[in-house]
Amino acid sequence: VKTKGRPKKIKTKWLFKGRLFQFATIELRAPSGRKFSHQVVYHPGAAVVLPLLDGERFAMVRQYRTAVEKNVLELPAGTLEHDESPLLCAKREIQEEVGFRAKSWKKLVTYYPAVGISTERMHIFLAQNLTPCPMALEQDEYLTREIVSFRQLKKMVESGTIADGKTLLAFHYYCQYIRKR
Amino acid sequence: VKTKGRPKKIKTKWLFKGRLFQFATIELRAPSGRKFSHQVVYHPGAAVVLPLLDGERFAMVRQYRTAVEKNVLELPAGTLEHDESPLLCAKREIQEEVGFRAKSWKKLVTYYPAVGISTERMHIFLAQNLTPCPMALEQDEYLTREIVSFRQLKKMVESGTIADGKTLLAFHYYCQYIRKR
Repeated sequence: VKTKGRPKKIKTKWLFKGRLFQFATIELRAPSGRKFSHQVVYHPGAAVVLPLLDGERFAMVRQYRTAVEKNVLELPAGTLEHDESPLLCAKREIQEEVGFRAKSWKKLVTYYPAVGISTERMHIFLAQNLTPCPMALEQDEYLTREIVSFRQLKKMVESGTIADGKTLLAFHYYCQYIRKR
Repeated sequence: VKTKGRPKKIKTKWLFKGRLFQFATIELRAPSGRKFSHQVVYHPGAAVVLPLLDGERFAMVRQYRTAVEKNVLELPAGTLEHDESPLLCAKREIQEEVGFRAKSWKKLVTYYPAVGISTERMHIFLAQNLTPCPMALEQDEYLTREIVSFRQLKKMVESGTIADGKTLLAFHYYCQYIRKR
């Protein structure tokens, strides 16, 4: 199977510019000369945290998600602020959303959650040696903290109750990590 | 930790309506009465296929992705057409993108890849008992087929060379599946 070459970007038409992300139509020219367009979400990236507590329990959040119009059980996560490193963002988010500080951090994986439409990269961290601190939710965040055992989480992953991609991926990387330890 | 209640959608302002997806600003009212807004990508969902060949090899695609402006090695996948079931879409996509038909199909997982910004659900299938058929790429698709062994794929997952979320998740579900078999 031969490659047909690579399209070239010729124009960006901005459709939306927000504080957290932007949305544009990209016009491209194919190697054949034909023009076409794709839509792209420009996103600064996000940090995701799997906060591990004593007794192999995890601090999760149940959060109202506007897109799917329901409460979703997922890991604490947030969008990178201007010039913020993924690790710094991860530290900020577990404090804000679940009220913990962590002494040890391990990167599990960095990936594109939706490479077909978005520039977003997600950075998943395992946070260990936690100590409680005050929670500080941002405005427009509607969530509750839930402490979940490994056994409960495993059951919810296997039954399809966990539907959030970053949480599923974090769980699989954690399982791999503990088998290796 | 107490829930603060659930916001209510009060208005949808369409910013973009395309053939494959839409983009809108959703205005919401918080339980406190305060108004705020979120942006949402409305997406019909996608089917992803892990096509398993003899000798534990996989048929993958290296595809130019406008969002990240590079060629990405990933599994064949595509957006659900109007009224199309995920399985029908999966069957169409492995034929179009890698030139195979499969006799046996197994759903590995359904998940939200980016629940913070998009309604999209991805349905990942394992396709087995493959027979070759002609490829039929859609216009605006620039990709080449690559046949990759389990060993190669494992190495690329572990080294971070595979950066696409659906491909990582499919790989982990496959590993779980073969251990259970």
